[in-house]
Amino acid sequence: MLQLDNFKSVIDKYKVIFFDAFGVLKNYEGLLPGIEKTFAYMEAQGKEYYIVTNDASRSPAQLAESYHRGGLTFISPDRIVSSGMLTKEYLDLKVKDGIVAYLGTVNSAHYIESSGLKTLPVSKIDSSNIDKVNALVFLDDEGFDWASDLNKTVNIIRKRTIPVIVANTDRAYPLTVSDVSIAIGGIAAMVESVVGKQFIRFGKPDAQMFMFAYDLVRSHMKAGKHEILMVGDTLNTDILGGNKFGLDTVLVLSGNTLAQDVQARITAMGIVPTYICESAVISEDELGF
Amino acid sequence: MLQLDNFKSVIDKYKVIFFDAFGVLKNYEGLLPGIEKTFAYMEAQGKEYYIVTNDASRSPAQLAESYHRGGLTFISPDRIVSSGMLTKEYLDLKVKDGIVAYLGTVNSAHYIESSGLKTLPVSKIDSSNIDKVNALVFLDDEGFDWASDLNKTVNIIRKRTIPVIVANTDRAYPLTVSDVSIAIGGIAAMVESVVGKQFIRFGKPDAQMFMFAYDLVRSHMKAGKHEILMVGDTLNTDILGGNKFGLDTVLVLSGNTLAQDVQARITAMGIVPTYICESAVISEDELGF
Amino acid sequence: MLQLDNFKSVIDKYKVIFFDAFGVLKNYEGLLPGIEKTFAYMEAQGKEYYIVTNDASRSPAQLAESYHRGGLTFISPDRIVSSGMLTKEYLDLKVKDGIVAYLGTVNSAHYIESSGLKTLPVSKIDSSNIDKVNALVFLDDEGFDWASDLNKTVNIIRKRTIPVIVANTDRAYPLTVSDVSIAIGGIAAMVESVVGKQFIRFGKPDAQMFMFAYDLVRSHMKAGKHEILMVGDTLNTDILGGNKFGLDTVLVLSGNTLAQDVQARITAMGIVPTYICESAVISEDELGF
Amino acid sequence: MLQLDNFKSVIDKYKVIFFDAFGVLKNYEGLLPGIEKTFAYMEAQGKEYYIVTNDASRSPAQLAESYHRGGLTFISPDRIVSSGMLTKEYLDLKVKDGIVAYLGTVNSAHYIESSGLKTLPVSKIDSSNIDKVNALVFLDDEGFDWASDLNKTVNIIRKRTIPVIVANTDRAYPLTVSDVSIAIGGIAAMVESVVGKQFIRFGKPDAQMFMFAYDLVRSHMKAGKHEILMVGDTLNTDILGGNKFGLDTVLVLSGNTLAQDVQARITAMGIVPTYICESAVISEDELGF
Repeated sequence: MLQLDNFKSVIDKYKVIFFDAFGVLKNYEGLLPGIEKTFAYMEAQGKEYYIVTNDASRSPAQLAESYHRGGLTFISPDRIVSSGMLTKEYLDLKVKDGIVAYLGTVNSAHYIESSGLKTLPVSKIDSSNIDKVNALVFLDDEGFDWASDLNKTVNIIRKRTIPVIVANTDRAYPLTVSDVSIAIGGIAAMVESVVGKQFIRFGKPDAQMFMFAYDLVRSHMKAGKHEILMVGDTLNTDILGGNKFGLDTVLVLSGNTLAQDVQARITAMGIVPTYICESAVISEDELGF
Repeated sequence: MLQLDNFKSVIDKYKVIFFDAFGVLKNYEGLLPGIEKTFAYMEAQGKEYYIVTNDASRSPAQLAESYHRGGLTFISPDRIVSSGMLTKEYLDLKVKDGIVAYLGTVNSAHYIESSGLKTLPVSKIDSSNIDKVNALVFLDDEGFDWASDLNKTVNIIRKRTIPVIVANTDRAYPLTVSDVSIAIGGIAAMVESVVGKQFIRFGKPDAQMFMFAYDLVRSHMKAGKHEILMVGDTLNTDILGGNKFGLDTVLVLSGNTLAQDVQARITAMGIVPTYICESAVISEDELGF
Repeated sequence: MLQLDNFKSVIDKYKVIFFDAFGVLKNYEGLLPGIEKTFAYMEAQGKEYYIVTNDASRSPAQLAESYHRGGLTFISPDRIVSSGMLTKEYLDLKVKDGIVAYLGTVNSAHYIESSGLKTLPVSKIDSSNIDKVNALVFLDDEGFDWASDLNKTVNIIRKRTIPVIVANTDRAYPLTVSDVSIAIGGIAAMVESVVGKQFIRFGKPDAQMFMFAYDLVRSHMKAGKHEILMVGDTLNTDILGGNKFGLDTVLVLSGNTLAQDVQARITAMGIVPTYICESAVISEDELGF
Repeated sequence: MLQLDNFKSVIDKYKVIFFDAFGVLKNYEGLLPGIEKTFAYMEAQGKEYYIVTNDASRSPAQLAESYHRGGLTFISPDRIVSSGMLTKEYLDLKVKDGIVAYLGTVNSAHYIESSGLKTLPVSKIDSSNIDKVNALVFLDDEGFDWASDLNKTVNIIRKRTIPVIVANTDRAYPLTVSDVSIAIGGIAAMVESVVGKQFIRFGKPDAQMFMFAYDLVRSHMKAGKHEILMVGDTLNTDILGGNKFGLDTVLVLSGNTLAQDVQARITAMGIVPTYICESAVISEDELGF
């Protein structure tokens, strides 16, 4: 029988908690019932918390707003670290001028825009402006025509020697209890194998996500890696990445990894979380208020 | 300097010639000018010839017809071996009843139909008939909506433990002198990596293509592998596959592999053709008729 | 509960049976007790049978002898199809002269020798003879010093543009009930990724193994693919390869795939055997003689 | 014609310079003649410099000593960031007790030892102590018997669900002008594919290497990523990793990438350095002292 740890007892040992979003705080039906109590408890205890999420479809402000609409008002934009933010930092540092072509919604592109750079959807690239394209970014699986725009993307990348950025490493995401959807990371992997060039990927399990969050933590407090806990529902992103970065990790069973599979998967993959908990929800009884 | 072999001298040494289609007999502009003389010569010399092609978009009859329209009347349907034919053989032998769901045009599906099996495009699969789906086939990159039908395909394969067949291993194909198009083999590789199951692939360089052609040869003549020559423009399909099957191979420079790159590519990949020729076209001078 | 098929009833439906060796006829302790009764039954019924095995460590004669020593006298050398035989055919057809360098035992090299070709262990290749090396073959994980000879192999392949043949695709093989050993296929994959060239692999699940066996069958009888059954213990070699070639397949639970894992593995891999049986042993009761 | 940048002019624009070691500061013959002048210049200009190297065979102190022996006395241990240091940090943070089994020399293991953890070569693991093995580390390609210890490693990892750390991601390293040697990263990839579990890798191009160096920089000065330059000879480690972390990068042609190949490789891989320079050596003339 699987021995589960108590989530409240686990977080009591740490000063800072990193949360994955999907499968931990919310699922396809919305926020997990009761999850706001966990945040109220952390606030009361003076713990720091951050959302570390593979998502480039919206800005941190928009992501925060979606939590607020669901009733989780604790999450402010400055507590969110997304793969979209790493993409924006990359473009700010490394692409000085010209056009950034993108696959995704207009809204996803809006966030990565900065002074000097113009974003244009791949569908708007043609012989008149292709020479000014200095980077191409995979942002979101929506907002474009897959057949025509993916073929166009392949040919832009063949003709231009430019950095290609994948702003979300996930290959699929859950849509309903039984269905998944192909994510932009899966689409980008296909294009990469067709063109044979190496793309730049941002997202867990890559260390750069955790470092961005860790830098944010250290900008307003002193904290060592041993004082930070990563909470996630997926072994090969949240747990592998957190472990490798040197954090303790807790696998919750409210998302990608189900109770009946957890031991077999840990053994098969060789990825071992520090703790395993039912979910990140703390019950009213435990809180005592 | 690259030492080229004379194509006529090369084929003079063999009884049977296998030809790749795209990049050897035709390109995006149509048939190679003069290619019909090569076939006239082979006819005059009593040589056997076959087209061995990664193509599941049309039946052998339709493929032959397209050569006839271009003026190459030598190519009859019984001289064509396509990856679509292997797919049809697989379904005939291994799938006894139910629905074969497919991605491709209605025409591509027509050819693989057989008694007892019903083909349905992925777009027509829903909760009412998904339990009868006993195989899923990737036929062509056209004829379906990429975004909705690829997501649907992922979920059908997750729900049904059935064989998934990829009827063309190519990842891309040339569209114009400068542009390529993503092929159904590239799309299938993306879906395979998302669902994590193993698909069945038909097409060069796989030995089964060459065996199908070799069986066809032996059904009306005696011939050893050493009497057969494979002519192709692509090192890692035509040449690798031909070599591995035990055939002598000739790389022609009229398609995928350009004269200026050929030595570097052979060295980099470690795939060595028996001969290298400018093209499969025999000039009028050489023919002397 | 897993519904198992009766092995005797299954083979009763076919004219020809292909058997994998390890995990089906024998394991690390020797021949499966009672397996000779299965062969006696097939003889009595006039069924044809062949051993189809990923093994290049010995010749068919030596492989047959090892069955005879164990008491299974039915298996003659002409009923064995090994990946070593495909390697030999390749060298006979495609390498005309010079040296074939190899990794393996002296005995494994003995079998692939033929007129005109000299085999030499990698350890004997130096600046005086490297220019005559026209092929390199991975035969067996024994018979050489891994550290020095694998480094030497890497450098021979970097310097010579020659075919590199892997005579056994397996990555590991069982040694005892709890331990495995790295196979020559795993070693070759490492060397391939270090040098970045494409090797030629012989062994299941590749169609060429099954074709070699099928050609052997047809050389002394008439048989269609639907009359042949492949018996194996491994989903992604025996069953995947048999299915793809168009044969019906039976997975036995006496080797690589255990009863408690079989359903989960079939679902995870998407590889579906036609039948599942306890083992290839037919009990005395069933035989009635 | 390739337009090269002047190395001195390039580094004049940055406050901090990160150097790869092999191919940049030294090659198989020792230190690059004149490289000490580059360091004298940086000292004179008050620039910060660090060595960022995929090496777990020795401690920073031993690495520094080897530069001193060669006459490059500027490089102190606190200016070295190695993949071995990341490995040590991982073990300190994540493995509390028990045995760390390793592949490598005794010296390589000495450095990763810490209070509470005992290191033991894989050859010393047996049934009496395997239950105490809480991590396994690939350190160096020397110091062990490849055949017996790699097979033992496979079986330890199959039996124990523990983190497996690869302390150097390189697959090969140059030995002489014409020969390479398989590196521990190549060996680890083979073992990973045989056991099917996911290992933890430290080394360029992974962001964690650059972050470790960046944290070191910021511990004694204020510096933004745009003020740091990465100097390397390899596109898919130094340049890809530096670019992705947001640093400007310079490719030098004194190591892995040769002048005649550089444009073709950049185009093929799609990895674009900010600058390309002959080497990191500044000539006496330029220095003017």
